[in-house]
Amino acid sequence: MTAQTIAQQMGARLEAGDAEAVTRAALKLAQTEDTIFVRTEPEAALAQARTCDVLAARGQAMGPLHGVTLAHKDMFDRAGQVTGFGAHPDAARAATGTSTVLARLDAAGQVDLGRLTMSEFAMSPTGQNAHWGVARNPRIPGAVPGGSSSGSGAAIAAGLVRAALGSDTGGSIRLPAACCGVVGFKPTKGRVPVTGVMPLSYTLDCVGPLAASVAEARLVLSIISGADGIDPVCADRPAPRAYARSPQKLRIGFDASAYTAGIAPEMAEGLRRLKALLQDLGHGVVDLDLSLLDTLGEASNVIAMSEAAAVHADRLAVAAERYGPQVRSRLLQAEAMPGYAYVRAMQIRLKAQQQVNQEVFGKVDLFILPTLIGLPPMADAVNISADPKMASLIGSMGKYTRPLNLLGLPALSLPGHEAEGLPYSVQIVGPAWSEDLIADLGQQVETVRA
Amino acid sequence: MTAQTIAQQMGARLEAGDAEAVTRAALKLAQTEDTIFVRTEPEAALAQARTCDVLAARGQAMGPLHGVTLAHKDMFDRAGQVTGFGAHPDAARAATGTSTVLARLDAAGQVDLGRLTMSEFAMSPTGQNAHWGVARNPRIPGAVPGGSSSGSGAAIAAGLVRAALGSDTGGSIRLPAACCGVVGFKPTKGRVPVTGVMPLSYTLDCVGPLAASVAEARLVLSIISGADGIDPVCADRPAPRAYARSPQKLRIGFDASAYTAGIAPEMAEGLRRLKALLQDLGHGVVDLDLSLLDTLGEASNVIAMSEAAAVHADRLAVAAERYGPQVRSRLLQAEAMPGYAYVRAMQIRLKAQQQVNQEVFGKVDLFILPTLIGLPPMADAVNISADPKMASLIGSMGKYTRPLNLLGLPALSLPGHEAEGLPYSVQIVGPAWSEDLIADLGQQVETVRA
Repeated sequence: MTAQTIAQQMGARLEAGDAEAVTRAALKLAQTEDTIFVRTEPEAALAQARTCDVLAARGQAMGPLHGVTLAHKDMFDRAGQVTGFGAHPDAARAATGTSTVLARLDAAGQVDLGRLTMSEFAMSPTGQNAHWGVARNPRIPGAVPGGSSSGSGAAIAAGLVRAALGSDTGGSIRLPAACCGVVGFKPTKGRVPVTGVMPLSYTLDCVGPLAASVAEARLVLSIISGADGIDPVCADRPAPRAYARSPQKLRIGFDASAYTAGIAPEMAEGLRRLKALLQDLGHGVVDLDLSLLDTLGEASNVIAMSEAAAVHADRLAVAAERYGPQVRSRLLQAEAMPGYAYVRAMQIRLKAQQQVNQEVFGKVDLFILPTLIGLPPMADAVNISADPKMASLIGSMGKYTRPLNLLGLPALSLPGHEAEGLPYSVQIVGPAWSEDLIADLGQQVETVRA
Repeated sequence: MTAQTIAQQMGARLEAGDAEAVTRAALKLAQTEDTIFVRTEPEAALAQARTCDVLAARGQAMGPLHGVTLAHKDMFDRAGQVTGFGAHPDAARAATGTSTVLARLDAAGQVDLGRLTMSEFAMSPTGQNAHWGVARNPRIPGAVPGGSSSGSGAAIAAGLVRAALGSDTGGSIRLPAACCGVVGFKPTKGRVPVTGVMPLSYTLDCVGPLAASVAEARLVLSIISGADGIDPVCADRPAPRAYARSPQKLRIGFDASAYTAGIAPEMAEGLRRLKALLQDLGHGVVDLDLSLLDTLGEASNVIAMSEAAAVHADRLAVAAERYGPQVRSRLLQAEAMPGYAYVRAMQIRLKAQQQVNQEVFGKVDLFILPTLIGLPPMADAVNISADPKMASLIGSMGKYTRPLNLLGLPALSLPGHEAEGLPYSVQIVGPAWSEDLIADLGQQVETVRA
């Protein structure tokens, strides 16, 4: 697929005058979805659209996203606009600069419709938010949209945009992708710069796309990837490819341990079908014992929460009442975690990374995991504020996503096909920097199903 | 210089029968120095010597260290021997395996005389030890030998060995090198595996050599460098060269800020002479503002101590009385450090690394720093146990060494020439992985002076 056909699929209009009209229509639709969009930014969006149209009138194009309407989780700075972080209005602030990723999408020709809902400070896997309620789930009415990039998943599922930016510290791209039935692509830690993006946990945070298809997700990822000379955690690596190549015959692992024994029957059936499909495509499938991943939840939590406390301790000391009860409770617990517990968690992480590299990726090129255990929960059933069940719910939602953040691995969440039943949504996981291979396999599966 | 000439300089005897005789003589001398050697290991040493002699009788050699007598700080495991860590005897334990670095030196033909004194758990920069006293300083009678690799520096200065292993978390190779007037080479963080080595602070600890000359230090470093597939922090990088090349014309930086304004007059005079010497050699000298490094002490301390607490918390809970008062006090303070303070220190570190890479190594190839402010203190004057002056003394001793651990940079401490006055001991510092260039310049200076 060429950049132009992808862009056309994403709604780009290269003819003069079209981008503005398309943008007006998209803004109008977005404005009716006030659980999904925190705020559209009509002036900025229309200005971008007009620039596209002026160029198109001269026979030129901005780039591979010329005139494509996108949107972003409300934690990416854009100079002159207010970033809200899904938080109490007191926390919102006017950005002084533009995040690297938005600047790169701008340069590629995007029309940025505005800001999507999210969990408070990106801290809930369900997408519930004590200040702002919960975005509707367009795929399964009444279910949570997943979080923390809840608006990003919901906006794509509702047909408002073809792709949107999210961030993923413990599953925050992949969980809303799975809950809303869209694609979510968490890159390798250090692939995408976080300059101008709200920090939550600096050793776990990954910026990446949610999209209607793998092709669109990888196009966006290819544009936002690469060091910017500012983010010290971002690696100086070439960006992944925007386009698919047919993958070689791969060795693909499936967990055969207790780690995935408790998944919903429909999910288990989906995995069986996927295994058969991959074999039909000529790939080898390999049984793995991934139970090591099941032991990483607490280390992941200690790291994420200690790092979140480093971000929030100062504000928490003066404005604790402006946090929702669940987020406040988690941050106050985090402040009491000792440094040496964090150090031990980091050492568990290092050892686990080494073990997975040697033992798992010694046997397979990629492996498959469910994204969720089963269907997303109903919003009413998990409206638990700071109840003690909180930790259990968070742990259960992130069972298959959090360990991959701890390991720093790239993971593509691929939604189920309608014919395969809703809950079937899987992650394709690979070694660090293997986004090309992951996306190639993702597109191969997507193409075969279509 | 060839490997053989270096080995000869180091005391190697390639003729049949010589290694055993040399080893017996070396052991006899070492046994008279009970403040420097914790324990010689005669049986193991003589067995290694005899193996060398058997090979030599066949016209073969073990490797570049064939028959060279070396020794190591008492924190490197050797299977079947007891490691003591400079601690209360209760902490000593029989090693089940041999550390990677000792195994590599063995394979290169070393004869390992045994175990050298050290600060308790490698935690004092003066080399004082509440359990075992302090090693004599052969260069300046009555002065501290520097720590924590105190025996390693003293053994070389006393002529007992030509090189010895040390470790450096905040200066522990370079400080005893400077106090005892020998060479100390702290490599880039991640250059040398720490498998089988007592951990203190896993993100700061570096294993490296102290030696009588740069040539000998780099030979040892070249042998012990490189990933071993076990230490997850060790980088998969080729080992540095064992032999010198004449360096190109370099840009060499000298600090012109308040950071080095308070050094002893003899040190300042030594730096002026070195600057002139480098210019005579055709290098360019550049004034730098290195005051950023002066701000890194507390971040370094929080990281080192939190990581040390991760190692010691369990033993401290059951055997606090078996720590010396200074070490106990520091570890108990460390246990109370919150995780988010550690996280903030790590973020300071990342930013500082980026800044030094961009701003300092954008202007110079290498830079020069004193190792110590001036002469090493007299042992009697700094016997302060857990006195509040402790933090100030530790900070003052490590003023020019600790920031380089935080930055992860390689640094070679080069002693002053007799003619230049005792306190003149400087570090040659370069970007990560620049050990070859650092050692080339170090040998050039050493050769010109000789």
